Amino acid sequence: MFIHTIKEVRNILKEQKRSEKSIGFVPTMGFLHEGHLSLIKKAKEENDYVVVSVFVNPAQFGPNEDFKDYPRDYERDYNLSIGAGADLIFNPSIEEMYPVDNKCEVKVKDLSSGLCGASRPLFFGGIALVVTKLFNIINPTKAYFGQKDAQQLAIIKKLVKDLNFDLEIVACPLIREADGLAMSSRNIYLSKDERKSALRLSQSLFKAQEMIKNGERNPDKIKEFIKQYITEDENCNLDYIEIVDSGNIIGVEEIKDSTLIAVAANVGKTRLIDNILVEV
Amino acid sequence: MFIHTIKEVRNILKEQKRSEKSIGFVPTMGFLHEGHLSLIKKAKEENDYVVVSVFVNPAQFGPNEDFKDYPRDYERDYNLSIGAGADLIFNPSIEEMYPVDNKCEVKVKDLSSGLCGASRPLFFGGIALVVTKLFNIINPTKAYFGQKDAQQLAIIKKLVKDLNFDLEIVACPLIREADGLAMSSRNIYLSKDERKSALRLSQSLFKAQEMIKNGERNPDKIKEFIKQYITEDENCNLDYIEIVDSGNIIGVEEIKDSTLIAVAANVGKTRLIDNILVEV
Repeated sequence: MFIHTIKEVRNILKEQKRSEKSIGFVPTMGFLHEGHLSLIKKAKEENDYVVVSVFVNPAQFGPNEDFKDYPRDYERDYNLSIGAGADLIFNPSIEEMYPVDNKCEVKVKDLSSGLCGASRPLFFGGIALVVTKLFNIINPTKAYFGQKDAQQLAIIKKLVKDLNFDLEIVACPLIREADGLAMSSRNIYLSKDERKSALRLSQSLFKAQEMIKNGERNPDKIKEFIKQYITEDENCNLDYIEIVDSGNIIGVEEIKDSTLIAVAANVGKTRLIDNILVEV
Repeated sequence: MFIHTIKEVRNILKEQKRSEKSIGFVPTMGFLHEGHLSLIKKAKEENDYVVVSVFVNPAQFGPNEDFKDYPRDYERDYNLSIGAGADLIFNPSIEEMYPVDNKCEVKVKDLSSGLCGASRPLFFGGIALVVTKLFNIINPTKAYFGQKDAQQLAIIKKLVKDLNFDLEIVACPLIREADGLAMSSRNIYLSKDERKSALRLSQSLFKAQEMIKNGERNPDKIKEFIKQYITEDENCNLDYIEIVDSGNIIGVEEIKDSTLIAVAANVGKTRLIDNILVEV
């Protein structure tokens, strides 16, 4: 089912809840790739009924970001979602989600200011707001998020805990192309040449993981290596390399399990992110 | 039932929801008076099951305010609530509601900055946060708030709309003592002398209503009258007089139906508020 209004989606889900069905929810901005589909499949395995939302959320884009150009193909998203096991695709209009005169702000302090929050100051406030709204609309049993967006994941876990949402957040692994590039709806922006340069991100992380396996525990040395590896390629313009605790997104002094290494870079004009959860 | 943990209250309410019972919710800071009891009675009339929360919310008190001294009598609150028709009293500890390291902020912009928000800058953020948490814990069908806290009511209505909470806010009339004083848990702070001075608030509003009935529509003239009437009494230290639209809390240029006249004053050391919804 392809549903566009809050009222309709609530009515349908009330029926499901009346018969005590568990509801798995996968919020997305659409233009789905294998990463999203892995979340939908996981949701289907663990729940009776699966809702996928497809909504390019204007509140999480800055004025000079790619809201207008963000790729959209709702029919394709519908077919892919159904194919992966979704029962309902919720695709609201901007007016449906943000009627005039929205006054509410939802913020998760501290976790939202570093990494992607530093160069995208509106980003995580917009995400916390839309996720709060979507949780209240869908009222899911479990909600599925990719480890690709590691900072978002940490923020949403904290949001659920601090605001007492009665649901479980399920984190799913980052999915990569065969050559290692982290899947992203924005990969479509890359020229052939940039597509090759973009591999610098994942390759630098894999090599860092190797260094750690071989005993390196100093985050500064790892950062230095990654910086050099990425910036060697002139298509890559580094935004950040951060080595943090994956739960609270605070920088670590020594690398250990559950340490997150996260990078962001512009490849040509396309902003890409990637990360690994360290195994020591 | 007197319940202290989120887990217990959720388990009990899940049973109620399984049998499709409607849940009425009355959030309070305890030390209940007739105003609170009128909310509980209304909730009982309109719902199968009534939850009253009793929680003195530290997040809505400023550092120099009366959090520590705020009157508390949980056994009395329990008995009064049950007597008025409550089925469950939820009385969590501070640690239960705010485990260490709370990072979330919920704000309703614009509506929170004037009136009480001007002299109590933390107040409405603390309310929006605790109400969001309580709504997520109780998940009520309807929630009941008094017109006494008119700005709070406007903020919570906006919160529910903007964050898509699936519940209805029911506004209930302000309840007064026989002599006109607006009921408040803080009235207990007043000395006999101050108790008499406190009547200046309600009396000024009644007289303003008379002026409006007689044709006055100019908010400045009404403000000037109220100011003079309240400040004539040396126990009364005026905080604000505002004449606003009751929905968006923006000052009006001409008085009409749904205009709110709100006053706040310190009477001795006790901060009191009062208001009327104008009938033209």
